Amino acid sequence: MTVFEKISESFSRQCLMKTLNAELLEVEDGLVKIRSTFQPGLSQQNGFFHAGVLTSIVDSACGYAALSKMPEYADVLTIEFKVNFMRPALPESIIAVGKMLSSGRTISVCDGFVYDASGDKLLAKMTATLITVLPK
Amino acid sequence: MTVFEKISESFSRQCLMKTLNAELLEVEDGLVKIRSTFQPGLSQQNGFFHAGVLTSIVDSACGYAALSKMPEYADVLTIEFKVNFMRPALPESIIAVGKMLSSGRTISVCDGFVYDASGDKLLAKMTATLITVLPK
Amino acid sequence: MTVFEKISESFSRQCLMKTLNAELLEVEDGLVKIRSTFQPGLSQQNGFFHAGVLTSIVDSACGYAALSKMPEYADVLTIEFKVNFMRPALPESIIAVGKMLSSGRTISVCDGFVYDASGDKLLAKMTATLITVLPK
Amino acid sequence: MTVFEKISESFSRQCLMKTLNAELLEVEDGLVKIRSTFQPGLSQQNGFFHAGVLTSIVDSACGYAALSKMPEYADVLTIEFKVNFMRPALPESIIAVGKMLSSGRTISVCDGFVYDASGDKLLAKMTATLITVLPK
Repeated sequence: MTVFEKISESFSRQCLMKTLNAELLEVEDGLVKIRSTFQPGLSQQNGFFHAGVLTSIVDSACGYAALSKMPEYADVLTIEFKVNFMRPALPESIIAVGKMLSSGRTISVCDGFVYDASGDKLLAKMTATLITVLPK
Repeated sequence: MTVFEKISESFSRQCLMKTLNAELLEVEDGLVKIRSTFQPGLSQQNGFFHAGVLTSIVDSACGYAALSKMPEYADVLTIEFKVNFMRPALPESIIAVGKMLSSGRTISVCDGFVYDASGDKLLAKMTATLITVLPK
Repeated sequence: MTVFEKISESFSRQCLMKTLNAELLEVEDGLVKIRSTFQPGLSQQNGFFHAGVLTSIVDSACGYAALSKMPEYADVLTIEFKVNFMRPALPESIIAVGKMLSSGRTISVCDGFVYDASGDKLLAKMTATLITVLPK
Repeated sequence: MTVFEKISESFSRQCLMKTLNAELLEVEDGLVKIRSTFQPGLSQQNGFFHAGVLTSIVDSACGYAALSKMPEYADVLTIEFKVNFMRPALPESIIAVGKMLSSGRTISVCDGFVYDASGDKLLAKMTATLITVLPK
């Protein structure tokens, strides 16, 4: 099983991703992209994307970025993350990018970015801390 | 318009809350509770609630906790938040509690908590920073 | 060796604490207090305590709060923390309180608080994530 | 007064920087570097740099990176920051780099990095949120 297949298969079991109209765009070594296309059920009170949507897809992107660097039998869990929101996310589409920043034996740190549809504007920035889980 | 009506009305326009099967349980002065009841479209890859669901409802709870302390004409925006995840969220229901911790003229800080269905187990802990937005 | 002795001995080896004019006030099970008394070398540009002093002592308080709950042979390391600053810290004294919030087999989460000299005003709030280190 | 002079003058009034044996290395538009050289009073219990030293100098670097992009009469305050610690900081010297990531009318976000003496190893990563303060 390639790393793309491993992540693609896991992504398809994250049912929230389908609910958030999200698709896996790209899987490289230590870098994963996920896009969500707007639909009305994803909005906050003023018609923009809810911050929770941005966070959900960039959390998944960071988790898979970390997973892409792990041995095949390993899994990762998010311990915590922090997100800054810079701009409202217009009801078009948004692209989340997760990138491995640092990987230790137990703990990994990923940078996450959420861009607007054009890819030019940074809407949100995540830092996520993950823990490697090995089969017992 | 009471503060409950103001928040309830805004909540009903947060379409993501309906998508996440979330309901507004309680609005007090500086404290807001939101519950999400599990359905399959809210899961991560192992069948638990996706961290993004916990984050989305506790973000809304924190935002409304801050809003409940503001003048009627004011609005709030989330600048950033940080969430620690302590335990997997079983596919039952989860309750998010947002509480005002500190409120300044411009910046407010809220504590957010996500509990399991029994209300006994802390699943996640948020700290959120919000900015007051006044009409121009 | 009691837990107070273990922590007190470690504290005395944290030379930065002496540099920051900090003393260990209290060690309970899962709760540690550290006080720093102002001196000119601890200021930022406007004569208040530098945010780095608040952060340093509350980081140590959180670390020791976690350590107070561990087996005697264990050590803890800070993986990450987040701090919100609510008010300027007047050049008097400040008290940092670290409290265990959640403790797992590997990962612990602590709440940290920094108060003014009177103990009434919350100046800063930390959430810290720590990892238990066992001897090999 | 150039931006370097403005920041250099403010840095010299941050007495904690002298206490932490820190010097201002570089000020560019939106990028500031500060180095601290080890001395025994900066250690944690195992002889490494205390996390509080890394945090203090990278907090100052982020603050000045934001300030370097502001009008001359403006000041900035740190609202909050989050730091991940990746590696122990050996008792040599450490270099903190603050970089503007996003600047709004009121709120700015900076990335902070702490490197070892060689500049090759990332020891810690900060994200800081700052608020612009205008004279009344």
